[in-house]
Amino acid sequence: MSPRSTILAREIDRLKQRILLLGGRVESSLRQAVKAVRERDTALARSVIDTDEEIDQQEVELEEECLKILALHQPVAIDLRFIVAVLKINNDLERVGDLATNIADHAIFLSERPPIAFPFDFEAMAERVQEMLRLSLDALVNQSSSAAQRVRLADDEVDRLHHETYAAVEDLIRRHPEQLESAINLIGLSRRLERVADQATNIAEDVIYLVEGEIVRHVRPVP
Amino acid sequence: MSPRSTILAREIDRLKQRILLLGGRVESSLRQAVKAVRERDTALARSVIDTDEEIDQQEVELEEECLKILALHQPVAIDLRFIVAVLKINNDLERVGDLATNIADHAIFLSERPPIAFPFDFEAMAERVQEMLRLSLDALVNQSSSAAQRVRLADDEVDRLHHETYAAVEDLIRRHPEQLESAINLIGLSRRLERVADQATNIAEDVIYLVEGEIVRHVRPVP
Repeated sequence: MSPRSTILAREIDRLKQRILLLGGRVESSLRQAVKAVRERDTALARSVIDTDEEIDQQEVELEEECLKILALHQPVAIDLRFIVAVLKINNDLERVGDLATNIADHAIFLSERPPIAFPFDFEAMAERVQEMLRLSLDALVNQSSSAAQRVRLADDEVDRLHHETYAAVEDLIRRHPEQLESAINLIGLSRRLERVADQATNIAEDVIYLVEGEIVRHVRPVP
Repeated sequence: MSPRSTILAREIDRLKQRILLLGGRVESSLRQAVKAVRERDTALARSVIDTDEEIDQQEVELEEECLKILALHQPVAIDLRFIVAVLKINNDLERVGDLATNIADHAIFLSERPPIAFPFDFEAMAERVQEMLRLSLDALVNQSSSAAQRVRLADDEVDRLHHETYAAVEDLIRRHPEQLESAINLIGLSRRLERVADQATNIAEDVIYLVEGEIVRHVRPVP
């Protein structure tokens, strides 16, 4: 190995650590936001919103790091694909961070109004979505396309759950028209979860591309 | 200029033409989807959904093109930044294509139910959002950061319009509980428009980065 490629290998390793660090931050933010909804904890929700700036900052630094490596080391083949994958996953993770702050906003909105019985299984849906995010990051670390495929399949289930939310919320509004505002807010909450699942799926598809050199994002997954 | 950099300049020119071609496709898709909502035209809506596959295909090809240029020409400085910007804008445009198909889905849903008086100015909002997308692509062609800044400012206005939709739709549901399903669908429709505006803003921020070498996406625009 030439000295140059040793340096590149070390840079890529550092990049991997940084994207996982960001992934960990975003996961934690999402977990806190979900907890804030569950426990009607506005202080916790506000702390999620406050820490989003740090996630944004990490994203910017990571992108600059990728560009620096591209310019200095001019990587090719798998190294190039890895850096382009990190550029995209970085973007996806930052959006999950934004979605976590949106979920925190829902927590505040709902906590400031009378408690409402959720007409859909928020816990199960949130759990499923968090699993998908975790699995997509595992897929990245282990460069495992089978883990990534599992994320893609789970996305269909989350889409179905989100779709069912509509009928459930409409039913709630018919039974309790006085809960209209909170009920409509629940649809938004469910959609944020569904969008986190979409972002996890994007990450998984970038991992598949990285591992297999094939862009799969517009091909349906096979169960 | 060395022969090599002449080839690179030509490749970059070709890339610019291709991203604008994709932008034009996506703009047209969005325009048709908005028209399908306005005219309750399910056939038109279905044609928007059908052509999304071509947009997806163009996105995949463009990404492969970017990777090929990175690997073969190992561009640096402004050329590198341009290619990374195209990688990201490509992604954003493809998502606008997806949002256009989502809007087409709304058109079908709404057309299959009794006509409903929109409680918010859908036309004005759609017009504003389409202008933003056009302006963000103009900013890219002309590498104009002032045009890009205008897109960022317009995004605040669209956010405000989307926010007002909630109260308007809730009011509609209180007056016409029998229109519940369509009314809730309108919130989703307004949100899709707001997300197109977000994507146009992402594009504008990538243009600013390209022109000024500064990542602005987490800095508030100054009016």
